[in-house]
Amino acid sequence: MPVYFEDLTVGETQSFGSYDVTEAEVLAFAEEYDPQWFHTDPERASEESAFGALAASGWHTAAMTMRLLVDNHFSEAASYGAVGVDELRWPNPTFPGETLSVTVDVLEKTPSESTPDRGTVRTRVTTENEAGEPKLTMEPIVLYARRDPSTGGN
Amino acid sequence: MPVYFEDLTVGETQSFGSYDVTEAEVLAFAEEYDPQWFHTDPERASEESAFGALAASGWHTAAMTMRLLVDNHFSEAASYGAVGVDELRWPNPTFPGETLSVTVDVLEKTPSESTPDRGTVRTRVTTENEAGEPKLTMEPIVLYARRDPSTGGN
Repeated sequence: MPVYFEDLTVGETQSFGSYDVTEAEVLAFAEEYDPQWFHTDPERASEESAFGALAASGWHTAAMTMRLLVDNHFSEAASYGAVGVDELRWPNPTFPGETLSVTVDVLEKTPSESTPDRGTVRTRVTTENEAGEPKLTMEPIVLYARRDPSTGGN
Repeated sequence: MPVYFEDLTVGETQSFGSYDVTEAEVLAFAEEYDPQWFHTDPERASEESAFGALAASGWHTAAMTMRLLVDNHFSEAASYGAVGVDELRWPNPTFPGETLSVTVDVLEKTPSESTPDRGTVRTRVTTENEAGEPKLTMEPIVLYARRDPSTGGN
């Protein structure tokens, strides 16, 4: 059953997912979209990088996070997509061999004034490894359909 | 010659790049990282999507933007990578067949107080198509090395 605007409650938390980060995928993403040596050269990265080892592009961590969100949340959501993302941060690098999971906290719901069949939901997304170390945090603002525009939407 | 913290001037603007968006790449990225039907199913997207056609994942637009930044700016930058990104927005969807370019405005420079050999630079990045239609805007905060930590860094 689709998740509508009404189905999300401010203060609720969902945690899910399991994404195995492989060196092959880190290299493939970086070679295509972020070919800086600390993302593409394992030997030089382990010798010279401030991270101490080959690290995934931050945009790759964001993309893996999106995959976890799509598989576990948006596949069922009555969503029109994201308006944008605030405060995207990478508190620690993501390394091959780690397993990522995601936590979503619902921060704020705003029914649209101009378009009563929808509303925006601000969440806080935290991506962490199997040891609970945070790798990415962000606050997406996503447009959801409302099941019943005649209600207040909450 | 590397671009150091000192080499960037608040108020300066750089524009560069040319990235051809192909349907094959839009589908490949979406199938791996953002498998929502409006990014993966060209027929259904052209019939049912609010965008009117198959559109790239917003994270794909961000990744293509990063490739333009790496090829044209960070390949020469004495950069330690991004601390984070504020106000990431997708004002219009990106479609196959478009050609993307990037404009970078230098907004603010902050020498590090704790680590005098570096400083952060806030920029505004705008990605647009060949007609000047904006596709992505964001404010990355990037850590640069300072050429000469004994100066004020400006």
